[in-house]
Amino acid sequence: MASDTRVLFQESPSKTFEKDQQFMKALVYGGPGRKSLEQRPRPALQAPGDAIVKMVKTTICGTDLHILKGDVPTCEPGRILGHEGIGIVEDVGAAVTGFKRGDRVLISCISADGTCEYCRRGMYSHCVNGGWILGNVIDGCQAEYVRTPHADTSLYHIPEGLDDEAIVMLSDSLPTGFECGVLNGKVSPGSTVAIVGSGPIGLAALLTAQFYSPARIVMIDLDDKRLATALQFGATDVVNSGDDGALQAARALTGGRGFDTAIEAVGIPATFELCQELVAPGGIIANIGVHGKKVDLHLEKLWSENIAITTRLVDTVSTPMLLKTVEAKRIDPARLITHHFRLDDILEAYDTFGRAADTGALKVLISA
Amino acid sequence: MASDTRVLFQESPSKTFEKDQQFMKALVYGGPGRKSLEQRPRPALQAPGDAIVKMVKTTICGTDLHILKGDVPTCEPGRILGHEGIGIVEDVGAAVTGFKRGDRVLISCISADGTCEYCRRGMYSHCVNGGWILGNVIDGCQAEYVRTPHADTSLYHIPEGLDDEAIVMLSDSLPTGFECGVLNGKVSPGSTVAIVGSGPIGLAALLTAQFYSPARIVMIDLDDKRLATALQFGATDVVNSGDDGALQAARALTGGRGFDTAIEAVGIPATFELCQELVAPGGIIANIGVHGKKVDLHLEKLWSENIAITTRLVDTVSTPMLLKTVEAKRIDPARLITHHFRLDDILEAYDTFGRAADTGALKVLISA
Amino acid sequence: MASDTRVLFQESPSKTFEKDQQFMKALVYGGPGRKSLEQRPRPALQAPGDAIVKMVKTTICGTDLHILKGDVPTCEPGRILGHEGIGIVEDVGAAVTGFKRGDRVLISCISADGTCEYCRRGMYSHCVNGGWILGNVIDGCQAEYVRTPHADTSLYHIPEGLDDEAIVMLSDSLPTGFECGVLNGKVSPGSTVAIVGSGPIGLAALLTAQFYSPARIVMIDLDDKRLATALQFGATDVVNSGDDGALQAARALTGGRGFDTAIEAVGIPATFELCQELVAPGGIIANIGVHGKKVDLHLEKLWSENIAITTRLVDTVSTPMLLKTVEAKRIDPARLITHHFRLDDILEAYDTFGRAADTGALKVLISA
Amino acid sequence: MASDTRVLFQESPSKTFEKDQQFMKALVYGGPGRKSLEQRPRPALQAPGDAIVKMVKTTICGTDLHILKGDVPTCEPGRILGHEGIGIVEDVGAAVTGFKRGDRVLISCISADGTCEYCRRGMYSHCVNGGWILGNVIDGCQAEYVRTPHADTSLYHIPEGLDDEAIVMLSDSLPTGFECGVLNGKVSPGSTVAIVGSGPIGLAALLTAQFYSPARIVMIDLDDKRLATALQFGATDVVNSGDDGALQAARALTGGRGFDTAIEAVGIPATFELCQELVAPGGIIANIGVHGKKVDLHLEKLWSENIAITTRLVDTVSTPMLLKTVEAKRIDPARLITHHFRLDDILEAYDTFGRAADTGALKVLISA
Repeated sequence: MASDTRVLFQESPSKTFEKDQQFMKALVYGGPGRKSLEQRPRPALQAPGDAIVKMVKTTICGTDLHILKGDVPTCEPGRILGHEGIGIVEDVGAAVTGFKRGDRVLISCISADGTCEYCRRGMYSHCVNGGWILGNVIDGCQAEYVRTPHADTSLYHIPEGLDDEAIVMLSDSLPTGFECGVLNGKVSPGSTVAIVGSGPIGLAALLTAQFYSPARIVMIDLDDKRLATALQFGATDVVNSGDDGALQAARALTGGRGFDTAIEAVGIPATFELCQELVAPGGIIANIGVHGKKVDLHLEKLWSENIAITTRLVDTVSTPMLLKTVEAKRIDPARLITHHFRLDDILEAYDTFGRAADTGALKVLISA
Repeated sequence: MASDTRVLFQESPSKTFEKDQQFMKALVYGGPGRKSLEQRPRPALQAPGDAIVKMVKTTICGTDLHILKGDVPTCEPGRILGHEGIGIVEDVGAAVTGFKRGDRVLISCISADGTCEYCRRGMYSHCVNGGWILGNVIDGCQAEYVRTPHADTSLYHIPEGLDDEAIVMLSDSLPTGFECGVLNGKVSPGSTVAIVGSGPIGLAALLTAQFYSPARIVMIDLDDKRLATALQFGATDVVNSGDDGALQAARALTGGRGFDTAIEAVGIPATFELCQELVAPGGIIANIGVHGKKVDLHLEKLWSENIAITTRLVDTVSTPMLLKTVEAKRIDPARLITHHFRLDDILEAYDTFGRAADTGALKVLISA
Repeated sequence: MASDTRVLFQESPSKTFEKDQQFMKALVYGGPGRKSLEQRPRPALQAPGDAIVKMVKTTICGTDLHILKGDVPTCEPGRILGHEGIGIVEDVGAAVTGFKRGDRVLISCISADGTCEYCRRGMYSHCVNGGWILGNVIDGCQAEYVRTPHADTSLYHIPEGLDDEAIVMLSDSLPTGFECGVLNGKVSPGSTVAIVGSGPIGLAALLTAQFYSPARIVMIDLDDKRLATALQFGATDVVNSGDDGALQAARALTGGRGFDTAIEAVGIPATFELCQELVAPGGIIANIGVHGKKVDLHLEKLWSENIAITTRLVDTVSTPMLLKTVEAKRIDPARLITHHFRLDDILEAYDTFGRAADTGALKVLISA
Repeated sequence: MASDTRVLFQESPSKTFEKDQQFMKALVYGGPGRKSLEQRPRPALQAPGDAIVKMVKTTICGTDLHILKGDVPTCEPGRILGHEGIGIVEDVGAAVTGFKRGDRVLISCISADGTCEYCRRGMYSHCVNGGWILGNVIDGCQAEYVRTPHADTSLYHIPEGLDDEAIVMLSDSLPTGFECGVLNGKVSPGSTVAIVGSGPIGLAALLTAQFYSPARIVMIDLDDKRLATALQFGATDVVNSGDDGALQAARALTGGRGFDTAIEAVGIPATFELCQELVAPGGIIANIGVHGKKVDLHLEKLWSENIAITTRLVDTVSTPMLLKTVEAKRIDPARLITHHFRLDDILEAYDTFGRAADTGALKVLISA
């Protein structure tokens, strides 16, 4: 993938631009398989609720890789990617009351107008004037500056004294694991949890599941290195799903009863199938994975099993709660960060993140 | 199906039985496609928690037809069928404290020991010493007498002055529609509900959904007669799913947003598929149907829709609540009853119920 | 109270005002015991989130009478009263996206910025930039025009075809009875509910409690006329609390067990005391009443009774749901309206509402 | 109090008893201020649901001290005290299916028939045939043997390999702190919790509150030694309520907002008053304390604060969950045990426990 990218901004294209306009570096999607670090005009306020944020740190999401594969049709070539990060408020629109120039802020991956019927129900991801738009249908965060719509409901003040890098994980990874996996999965004290997929999102679910003191959290993956990481992150047990008898081994950890919560954090039919075999009567399959095709649902077996299956695009309604848990040192999200890069080296960061099986990358942090 | 049945008891077989033993009429399963009204020994107490109940009224369930098709392997030939009804307590075991000879009782289709881990969680259907056993793995209610295990947690006193026939609907039909459809579906004031399937269970969901004052309850079925019944029972709208544009017509009733609750009350892939097309973002598909095969789950579309899918074998934990609503005249479950028979004519009752499309039968009531 | 009021605007004071400024009629608080209908400058936009609404209908709340008694220190003389009503949007600020000139809107009694921590938790009443401010710390709705801050989260579109008068009840009365009484009280199918106080708010609780099909709703008051109204509105039973043995009579309606929900809709120690005697083990006392003094809480008896006591200033988060129930004809809030006046006669309206025991007034509707 | 007690069994009274009857040592209540260690006949089965348990470990509860003060009129002289402990099943009635001779069991302080309406709602404490009866209206656990009614729903198997002493804390202390304080108080990740009272029950709430990862748990007490213990047990902060400005200091720990959860674990008017000053808008006061007199409830301030106040007699419905958390080493309840005695020395144990301020006793463990 890295071979398809070009670094354009070193050519000093700004010389040819009109006077007064200011430029910045930005990672731009160029169509399937193409991305480049370019010089782009700095964003300006467009609506009274907007803010302009000078980026301090950003990161790359698995979804950015999906875009680059051409799997996200809403994202058109020319788009600046990225929907995560922290920064300093540079400017705010006339209607923004909660933020002012100079504020240190967390940027949520979800833009929420706070007023539509979905937002009022806490479903920010389905905001009729927002949702996941950053780095998708409007320019995103992998740049020196970003325009964030609905700033009052899409930015968060960063409490004093917190580690910048940890906070970047709250843009998307941590709330995704927590809301889609842990909250939807109703993890509770003494319960049993299986997490299928030990990537960054599965690990985010693992970290946040511990808020609720389950008796067992069993991590399931094909990669022994990621399973070793899971043990360090608090998994009580790990199972390599490539092993013979893996399913039986996992179920045996619950005395054969099955799991109260099975979290799907991969997004393919095989892993969803596995979750159906792991879940106990009365349990929940909480799907996090981004699925590209339909799956088999075994209602011929499950119709009488009193289970629930949940899906969710992260709403980031839990961001204030998560900030408090970080501030109280109940969780250290910085553990998800394995590599550091400068924005100038973002193509290398993409390469490292894209070859995670080789590089061992979880989240790569990029400093603007 | 009726041609396979024999009426044996008229032969007075009791003459040949040993002295003292008392006999009764009972509908006995004889293997796939075979059933007969026979003379059988009256049941006796077997455990301290048992009761013997003299049946007053019983009925036939769709599940009984499944047994007769051979679809329920746990039910072996020789079994007295039936898991619904009311009666008079004839005798109780030494450990029964809540009931005594002469009490008028409702028999729950689910036998619950009240002590196992599942029972304590309200999942009576998964009771490790009970569940759906009546007329399945032990003899059932389509007889003059029945033995009911775990009587204290499986029988219910019938309040004075209530209509017997209405109460029979609380053995299975009403709690099934209510628990699996309405409670799991979180029907709420002002919400929109689609019920796919206007048979007895779909109609039970329709009746009990009205407890929560939804704005719309749209009934969907292929049978216009059943849809007409649904309108009488309180549906705000009906859609014949065989019509062109039926899905669009149904969704249009929600302003195109989709339904907050889609209740599946049929049990085949096509109706589950329809529910996936009906449900709104943030909504729930509450499955009631007894499925015989796997279905397609369109996670490629639904992964980001914040929905839930629930399954449930009725637990009958809502029976005390339902009795109160009947007593308070908030609901009239007797509306589900379309035909009446004597136990002597139960084969005819089966025939009428089994040919519901022709006979218009919903629930058929049988008086012992 | 009416004797303290003056009608000033008939003097045509506008002659003396500066050119271009437009005037309107408004009911102005003049300090304890004083109110007057005056000419006041029309309100103008002050913030990008504001709207100016031309009033169509308004009403008077019991809280307005409290203000006039001098019980609400935040409300200073000179304030235009009123926090309820419907109107037509005249103008909106630059940041308002959900409304435009000409829209028919319901004005919520609670102004919510939609962005603060309380608003995100659904506690609009505690909005740090809003809450109950209309007709309290900013000018209110008993006028020809009103400025409504945070319009996007404080106004509601009125669906086509609905009765204007019914909708006015959704500004405050209906959500107050519903949220503070019915939702907090967890009214549910088959449950028992006692409502202490059969004034407009108690009756609003009565109307909305029926959304959940409780078995009994017992209305308790000292005024037989209001109890008669309660029966018409759907109470299953009424008890005059002045009668000998009233408490016993009320409890007898639950078989002596006590009520699952006891709603306090008066606001004095005696009625709160009564609720403690009415509530069953496991029940809830849902307080709606505006209390002026402390009450006795009998923890020496209640500590072991597994009860909850809830308090709440209405948040109006249920307004979208309530609008849907009105649209679906599940409730007719216009039943709360007993008298009609023109804005010119608002002093008479106050008099009628203030002497409710004599006039039989529930809600008085005022047309601008 | 200890001076009123007599040790009778050393006189070998058994010599004079009739042949065949077996005797045991037991701590017997003799009326206000009087208790004695006596020889008493061993209990026998009385109902089919009974079990006889040979005690292994028991303990003393603050409620036992209340009985000895004469504050519990249901407990009459001659009663064997004690409602906590573990033991070995000696015999079971004919209806007991879950336990057999030789099983190691935890005895719940609450006896629940599992069948009454309250039990079905999870309110075991209000069981119409049980509740808190052990060591109150029937003989209790401070003896060599005890009869436990409703054994199937009042005893719990102790998983292999668990520490006996830890498990004794699950009879009463731990579920009381957890159910009445933590569950009712809805402690959640990132929330703020104040616990007023650092005795055994307050500390049990402190231990179990950590299941939910609140941001702050502030312990408030007058005894610095107990506050030091609280810090060891996981309190994030402690406040001595006897200090000047204690309330302000406590509230300052929440940035002045007040606490999401205020747990009352003392049972006197002053501490309940304090909780009202600690709780934030939208928060919960979860009462655990056994109150002897009424308290002031400041509805004149709280009516609009959207708070809840909860009361509860422990139901022990959380016992299975708590056993799992102990088994998973998510909690170590043995930390509550400060002193050990033999049953022969139980009077000394009472003395140590009764003078907790001097002895530093939390829970005293007694081995039979």
